[in-house]
Amino acid sequence: MDIGLHNLEDFIRGTTILGTGGGGDPYVGKLMLLEALKQGHKIRLIDPDDLPNDARVINVLSMGAPTVINEKLPSGPATIAAVRAAERELGYKFDAVMPIEAGGVNSTVPLLVGALMDLPVVDADGMGRAYPEVQMTTYNVAGKSGNPHVLADDKKSIVVTNTDDNHEAEWLCRAVCVRMGGIAQMACHPLTGREIKDHAVLRTVSLSIEIGSTIRKARSANQDVFAALLDFFRARGRHARQLFEGKIVDLLRETREGFSIGRVVLQGIGDSKGELKIVFQNEFLLAEHDGRPVAMVPDLITVLDQETVEPITTEHLRFGQRVRVVGVGVPEIMRSERALQIFGPPGFRLDVAYRRIEELAA
Amino acid sequence: MDIGLHNLEDFIRGTTILGTGGGGDPYVGKLMLLEALKQGHKIRLIDPDDLPNDARVINVLSMGAPTVINEKLPSGPATIAAVRAAERELGYKFDAVMPIEAGGVNSTVPLLVGALMDLPVVDADGMGRAYPEVQMTTYNVAGKSGNPHVLADDKKSIVVTNTDDNHEAEWLCRAVCVRMGGIAQMACHPLTGREIKDHAVLRTVSLSIEIGSTIRKARSANQDVFAALLDFFRARGRHARQLFEGKIVDLLRETREGFSIGRVVLQGIGDSKGELKIVFQNEFLLAEHDGRPVAMVPDLITVLDQETVEPITTEHLRFGQRVRVVGVGVPEIMRSERALQIFGPPGFRLDVAYRRIEELAA
Repeated sequence: MDIGLHNLEDFIRGTTILGTGGGGDPYVGKLMLLEALKQGHKIRLIDPDDLPNDARVINVLSMGAPTVINEKLPSGPATIAAVRAAERELGYKFDAVMPIEAGGVNSTVPLLVGALMDLPVVDADGMGRAYPEVQMTTYNVAGKSGNPHVLADDKKSIVVTNTDDNHEAEWLCRAVCVRMGGIAQMACHPLTGREIKDHAVLRTVSLSIEIGSTIRKARSANQDVFAALLDFFRARGRHARQLFEGKIVDLLRETREGFSIGRVVLQGIGDSKGELKIVFQNEFLLAEHDGRPVAMVPDLITVLDQETVEPITTEHLRFGQRVRVVGVGVPEIMRSERALQIFGPPGFRLDVAYRRIEELAA
Repeated sequence: MDIGLHNLEDFIRGTTILGTGGGGDPYVGKLMLLEALKQGHKIRLIDPDDLPNDARVINVLSMGAPTVINEKLPSGPATIAAVRAAERELGYKFDAVMPIEAGGVNSTVPLLVGALMDLPVVDADGMGRAYPEVQMTTYNVAGKSGNPHVLADDKKSIVVTNTDDNHEAEWLCRAVCVRMGGIAQMACHPLTGREIKDHAVLRTVSLSIEIGSTIRKARSANQDVFAALLDFFRARGRHARQLFEGKIVDLLRETREGFSIGRVVLQGIGDSKGELKIVFQNEFLLAEHDGRPVAMVPDLITVLDQETVEPITTEHLRFGQRVRVVGVGVPEIMRSERALQIFGPPGFRLDVAYRRIEELAA
């Protein structure tokens, strides 16, 4: 499958829903890709099954708070410089690139880099959603080292971190990212085709396209878009439900230590009573209804405009917005005990024990 | 000339005087070297003139605030790891190591690394004194890139920064240093023998030994130690004088952004009237007598115990201490227009125009 002008919009909308509020404004990523497509570059997707086991693949991304990414745009050339530095470090060339997460700008950066470098993009990622920290991957859950962690910026500075501990890599790289201006282009987690098949969350790029296409088709057929979205996930065996419908009455958001951190409080409207509080660190992490958890990482919490069903990223939350909050269960690869340690509640130092969204519905 | 048990104490005392309050507690460095000497390692000095022009030399140091260095000691093995990473990056082996500055712990780190790696230590450095930031070198003044800038810690993390701008390197490395715990072992500024002869401040290790030996001899002969110290510098064509004698009546010191930053105020005793204020960033930067500058970077400002004439580093300043402040002129290589931009008052954003200490005496 390729991505072009015919399905770019679908892809962006779908990936923003998987992005659970994070990954930066998808509009920015769309503009970058439109420009590359106009210049004649091609975006080629490759299915994990079509990847030779010994294929060499690198994850590429923008590190930084979404609040910053929207003002200081991701750079294709700097990301390519990071990829080249990783190749020098490893002593071999990459056959493909891939996204480390599904969501916002970081879904589009690998497409841009693949297009500019004429490399295919693997239809998979390392988070199955968006997460704020670079060690929050299924690769890390599988015990793979992310080395080399390469950061690059438009001043042509290159910083390469090698460390035994992927969490330490995040800690060190984040400080550099902040000093690079709050956003850094990154290449890390080199993987073989075999490792991708075993440890990545598969086919999340095409999943994003399908989500977007579902919404588009429901809209043009004047169907209930929100219901179509829930049906889409349920048809794929995922738990999905509306968590709340409400108006934003309280919003705290700060850009701190390289992240966009805060909480939003909704007052119920319609059938929703009481208050829903959602805390976020780039992404929505935990939703509590009148103090009772109703969904938490790694399960997806996505905030949608009440009328248009457009996903709203954390940096675009505004006082008074009327929204629907949807919760979606995630694949089992993201719910193992070690996975929860890395990107479940303990990974975010949230003082709550993980319970699956489908259990919390009861 | 070698450094051994017979002259280690002299070296430490002398280098602390050149260190102008910075570089960390020399006692820490002394203990590290004593341990290495006891284990049978040799500290070999090599004169710059004996260095082949094509010799490959690397600067090694601890980056961090002295207040931290005294609690989290510099690591020989981590520094060696940084040197090895620089070798891998450059594709060749080093023939020698050298200090980037004269002062405190950072005078001793290269001696330790040279001893452990069985490499000679070049009798020269890149500052001719101590400075808080890694780009404040005569190499940088000469336009040499410090790449690769390698940071290493005891957790075996290695961070390699390459950038077109040495000041940017300091900016990025400092953030990593802070996250490595406030101190990082560093290798940077690879130089050839020719470059050292042209751009380093020469024979500052042997100068340190001579300063220390002058003090020791004056003490054992019951001579005026302070006068002997001034005479020593004057005999080498350096301006040297007592700037003030006083009691510490005000002290502000904080560990911030990877530095020890503050100011100390002295109230005059004896012939010294009024107040002397000295601002510092790891090192003493600017001394003002009742608001009038009397010495400033790059000239040396060193605080000595009134009775013992022992140098006092910035982190050992205490309320009520009675001290003498000495000012010493520096070699011309450290006073060029570009040198002043990098490590004169503008390099520290001090709102004062540079005037030589000998002019300010008039």
